[in-house]
Amino acid sequence: MMDYKARQKKLLVSLGTHSLDAFLITHLPNIRYLCGFTGSAGTLLLTGHSSIFFTDGRYTSQAAEEVADAKVVISHTQTLQCAAEWIARNHKKPGLNSKKAFKLGFEAEHLSSASTQRLRRMLPTGCRLQQTSMLVERIRMVKDVEELKQLRSAVLVGSSLFDITVNRIRAGIKETEVAAELEYDARNAGAEGMSFSTIVASGKRSALPHGVASTAQIPSRGFVVCDFGVILTGYCSDMTRTVHVGRPTKEARHVYEAVLEAQMAAIAAVRSGVSGSDVDRAARNVLKKRGLAAYFTHSTGHGVGLEIHELPRIAAKQAETLRAGMVITIEPGVYIPGKFGVRIEDMVVVTEGGCEVLTPTSKELMIL
Amino acid sequence: MMDYKARQKKLLVSLGTHSLDAFLITHLPNIRYLCGFTGSAGTLLLTGHSSIFFTDGRYTSQAAEEVADAKVVISHTQTLQCAAEWIARNHKKPGLNSKKAFKLGFEAEHLSSASTQRLRRMLPTGCRLQQTSMLVERIRMVKDVEELKQLRSAVLVGSSLFDITVNRIRAGIKETEVAAELEYDARNAGAEGMSFSTIVASGKRSALPHGVASTAQIPSRGFVVCDFGVILTGYCSDMTRTVHVGRPTKEARHVYEAVLEAQMAAIAAVRSGVSGSDVDRAARNVLKKRGLAAYFTHSTGHGVGLEIHELPRIAAKQAETLRAGMVITIEPGVYIPGKFGVRIEDMVVVTEGGCEVLTPTSKELMIL
Repeated sequence: MMDYKARQKKLLVSLGTHSLDAFLITHLPNIRYLCGFTGSAGTLLLTGHSSIFFTDGRYTSQAAEEVADAKVVISHTQTLQCAAEWIARNHKKPGLNSKKAFKLGFEAEHLSSASTQRLRRMLPTGCRLQQTSMLVERIRMVKDVEELKQLRSAVLVGSSLFDITVNRIRAGIKETEVAAELEYDARNAGAEGMSFSTIVASGKRSALPHGVASTAQIPSRGFVVCDFGVILTGYCSDMTRTVHVGRPTKEARHVYEAVLEAQMAAIAAVRSGVSGSDVDRAARNVLKKRGLAAYFTHSTGHGVGLEIHELPRIAAKQAETLRAGMVITIEPGVYIPGKFGVRIEDMVVVTEGGCEVLTPTSKELMIL
Repeated sequence: MMDYKARQKKLLVSLGTHSLDAFLITHLPNIRYLCGFTGSAGTLLLTGHSSIFFTDGRYTSQAAEEVADAKVVISHTQTLQCAAEWIARNHKKPGLNSKKAFKLGFEAEHLSSASTQRLRRMLPTGCRLQQTSMLVERIRMVKDVEELKQLRSAVLVGSSLFDITVNRIRAGIKETEVAAELEYDARNAGAEGMSFSTIVASGKRSALPHGVASTAQIPSRGFVVCDFGVILTGYCSDMTRTVHVGRPTKEARHVYEAVLEAQMAAIAAVRSGVSGSDVDRAARNVLKKRGLAAYFTHSTGHGVGLEIHELPRIAAKQAETLRAGMVITIEPGVYIPGKFGVRIEDMVVVTEGGCEVLTPTSKELMIL
């Protein structure tokens, strides 16, 4: 059981720091994190005194089953409006700030400009909206014990699926066939879905960093990049392996080894106290020495949890300090347009002295 | 081939109506609609004189392949910033409005409050941001010939998958197993993915309007709601059938017939010129007469296209007039908490005198 109360408490500390009287959460993964609701519509309001979750009639039973540590209100209008009406009725009650302006924080990165304007109009006089940025996401960066357990399970399922998938890869079959089998197995292994559109990019398509499985046939000679993840009890896994069909050229081997070395260097750089850019630089320096830095066109990694892309970012100019309990991907890649590409990706959990690699799959170049 | 130029022209007419000098499109389905890009990051800028699509280094090859009727710019910063810089360099050039303030429309329903603020700061003096709401979505409501072709194909694939799926439904197997087989077949039929998380809700779970497939076993007697869709070349299908395992009770039969009658009444009400609320009322009135209106807890339907939920909404208080070429779902349902639920859903295309039902699957109660 997730400890929603402890999470809400952490957020209330943030509220204090930002002098907010209440906080409105509209981003669904944040709502799930704070009260357990997994549906697609709702708004959570936290004051120091009450936690109220507003949803609509479609979710009456589901909210009753799932939501913990928040009162559920079934809204007959938009949930934002329902929350605004609740505030209008309650913001002058004792306990809630009654003299000064009532400051309501909201998630400015997630609420659209139009919804923000509508919300502002619905709020009572004396209630002021205040932009906040990533307050819940920053708490979510460090995973608690229960989350680490879920993430480990998701990673292990993903990894075991790869072992089966790799045996199916052969010249002549379509990329989508590989993806179809993988996704079928994922479902049967208990996954609620995939973390993102499965990438199976073969031959020249491997040079596309985001080459989602297409109807292209796997060629008789070339790389196949497989990048996929499963969602298990809400938590995402993410892994990439690049295998080679037929005999690799010298250049292909050279690039594979360079990417692997870069990936290992980045993993070696991870520990509590370093920054995301330190880790990114470790990968990039290896590729620079090999003359391949120009072909590494994305960042080295990202946090993973309830969402496939979370904080922290592992990229240039990211000053965010890594802390024990953060779960991140390490996934450098080299993409030579018109030729081929290679990416290798693990999930790791940051520890005080380094990191633990969660993905158990071998990274030796596999030739099929 | 989609006629992107014609679509951009329609939008430019809207620009004129709103006295805008340029329009910034950040919502990905709208970007795809207007220039063909299917990736996950980009910004499209339309002025009366130029169409420029900004994306990042991951999409160099893909943008070159996919984007039509817009110049591609590969951005080394955030694409919004790159677009703002382009405006700063170009908004005083002849042709672009040079004397009065330069009015830049943006998608207020899709750009977050925080991004809007950042964008405002990046724009040059003399350039004013102006909120717009659903300009592209309103154009997208009426499907063009090419879109109708794609939607028909998607619906037919979905329907043929249901025919196979229904033969697999039997007491004792897990809902997720049914979903797994269905999704596997969808992939092999060429689908890029599912339109939304597949719903297979059996027995008491059928009373959950959004009962995504769970590990629950299909009971020996009860309804099974199957609601799913495939994405084919970007276009979504959406259908629901409710079948019964074992002999239905009299009450179950009564409810099924009521929902079917409501669904047929709503379909009969569809034609160019009526409003979304007229169609919704037609379904609701039938259920009211049967004493079931309180159990119909959602709206009657929604537009479908590049997104699974589009305009127009088919719901109470929706004054939007239906027009020929709109594609909508008709999906009333009855959910009796703790007991069972029934939903029946087709996709239809609005015509001058009525509508054409796209979903060919029978709606007779199927007893397995």
